[in-house]
Amino acid sequence: MNKPVIAITMGDPAGVGPELSLKAATSLRVKRVARPLIIGDNGVLTRVAKKLKIKMPPQSSIISLSHLKATEFKAAHPSVKSSRAAISYIEEAVRLAQSGAADGIVTSPINKDALRHAGFKYPGHTEFLAHLTKTKDFVMMLGGDSLKVTLVTIHEPIKKVPELLTKESILKVIKITDASFKKFYKIKKPRIAVCGLNPHAGEPHGGKPHGGKPHGGKPHGGKSRHNKRTEEERFIAPAIKVANKLGINASGPYPPDTLFYQAVTNKDFDCVVCMYHDQGLIPLKLLHFEDGVNTTLGLPIIRTSPDHGTAYDIAWKGKASAKSMIAAIKEAASMTGAGRKHNG
Amino acid sequence: MNKPVIAITMGDPAGVGPELSLKAATSLRVKRVARPLIIGDNGVLTRVAKKLKIKMPPQSSIISLSHLKATEFKAAHPSVKSSRAAISYIEEAVRLAQSGAADGIVTSPINKDALRHAGFKYPGHTEFLAHLTKTKDFVMMLGGDSLKVTLVTIHEPIKKVPELLTKESILKVIKITDASFKKFYKIKKPRIAVCGLNPHAGEPHGGKPHGGKPHGGKPHGGKSRHNKRTEEERFIAPAIKVANKLGINASGPYPPDTLFYQAVTNKDFDCVVCMYHDQGLIPLKLLHFEDGVNTTLGLPIIRTSPDHGTAYDIAWKGKASAKSMIAAIKEAASMTGAGRKHNG
Repeated sequence: MNKPVIAITMGDPAGVGPELSLKAATSLRVKRVARPLIIGDNGVLTRVAKKLKIKMPPQSSIISLSHLKATEFKAAHPSVKSSRAAISYIEEAVRLAQSGAADGIVTSPINKDALRHAGFKYPGHTEFLAHLTKTKDFVMMLGGDSLKVTLVTIHEPIKKVPELLTKESILKVIKITDASFKKFYKIKKPRIAVCGLNPHAGEPHGGKPHGGKPHGGKPHGGKSRHNKRTEEERFIAPAIKVANKLGINASGPYPPDTLFYQAVTNKDFDCVVCMYHDQGLIPLKLLHFEDGVNTTLGLPIIRTSPDHGTAYDIAWKGKASAKSMIAAIKEAASMTGAGRKHNG
Repeated sequence: MNKPVIAITMGDPAGVGPELSLKAATSLRVKRVARPLIIGDNGVLTRVAKKLKIKMPPQSSIISLSHLKATEFKAAHPSVKSSRAAISYIEEAVRLAQSGAADGIVTSPINKDALRHAGFKYPGHTEFLAHLTKTKDFVMMLGGDSLKVTLVTIHEPIKKVPELLTKESILKVIKITDASFKKFYKIKKPRIAVCGLNPHAGEPHGGKPHGGKPHGGKPHGGKSRHNKRTEEERFIAPAIKVANKLGINASGPYPPDTLFYQAVTNKDFDCVVCMYHDQGLIPLKLLHFEDGVNTTLGLPIIRTSPDHGTAYDIAWKGKASAKSMIAAIKEAASMTGAGRKHNG
């Protein structure tokens, strides 16, 4: 038995987290690859299990940190107490991972607005985990079997994206992506595609009737029609150039509209670095709506999460699908190297 | 025999247009639904047919407007003469369509840079067709069997997109989309989804673990964290509201990252109105890389085209796939109402 221990935070008690934690911890697909350990509230789990007729996992796979009474919050109605409890689950999971007692953590959804009332001052899970682990540079990755994307900007409005792109911000994401794929997926030289920002990666349209590789940002038929230099020319291409000098197999900038098809169909790339949220998430969710996994790269610990929120509208109703949660646990287990020959 | 006559412009003689026109005009899949009529150059078509061992279509299905000699241009090397010829094919196709001699036109790719040297002053085909038909408001649609998208902004750089969005520009696209789906697809009340601009349509992330409808831009858990009003609040939602008052079944703004999966899987919508190029083209090309069709809505004539460029790198080499071209002809034929019961 060398299956990795994966700590599952129960998330916001008022959301779908308790249901997902229970479903995942009792899932055969999970138990084949990991020893799940729920960090949460035994009373809440028991109430949800009873209400939804889900089997309780053995007590040995639950660490009960809080003792929330049924009167202290209810489904879809978080309280300061339940939100404080949600924060404590994350802190404990990180402690377990840093001490080696857990091999990785998977976080159930929290609600930032609810947590704010409990003194939580981070934009989200990821930034809180970075704080707890004293991590400066981290990257959000979303992925499924057929496609993995990392994001240079995350939740920024479209109008702020261009001004946030710099050679350094792009290079940072390329470097963390490269290092993480080497470390967690044991790929010797990860093939990283870097997406352009603009239509046709800032070049005039001269696309070919498919076939072959994406055209890599090379001009088709003369110079750009834009007088000013594009973000591709100013930031993205220079970042790729520096990455290449560092020995990283990054290429691009590729036209966004054709790159994803090429990446998925030709399997030319291990990961696509995207400039903004929807550039990566539109294709990712089209392909992996139900089983997409959110992974934070750059942390000293392994951390994944399902790719959705607290979903108060279906909380405690037995309607939440655990597909993404289970995929997140399997991903975390796989990142530990379990079930793989160690070759270095 | 009431199959519609579809005029196929041969496009840039130095590009893949001649090959695609030949392949399409001799395709059984085309001939089942349309009478193809190539507007081009008989000598060029003969040379390409001979080189690539493609059967020549009957002379009755070719209107030869130019007489380009082999010395006057070559594959991948357009000249002023060949570019002028390309322009004349478009003008003639429009004349035929406006006179009723053709029921619709399908345009092979042109190269804007090459055409500019021949005095062409339009950003592309679409704008030239609008000029020829005296059309002020037109909309670019891209589509395949599973998804159709219309674009509010077309080839604009990302940084210009937010400032180009207005209630009027969005409403215009919704209205033309609605009218066109009624007219060409005989849908009584087209269901039009309007995409947001920003991540999660400008709302804090509280997505549900899938299932159900896209969450339609409603806030999850309290007010927006942005102090300023988003483009969704300022322009998109108001445009939808006016459209609804006009009796149009438009809804949104929907979070871009989940909308396309929902549109394709649940078939809740006939068309998705997108705010910028890659928002629509990333999902479209992921699903319809080879058979996507570009349709111009709002013109007084039916016009489609394959969704790719002149592809000089593979011109006259027999490597160009005619899938998108054939799909474009079938789409144009279908838009004429051929093979459908007339119900008004």
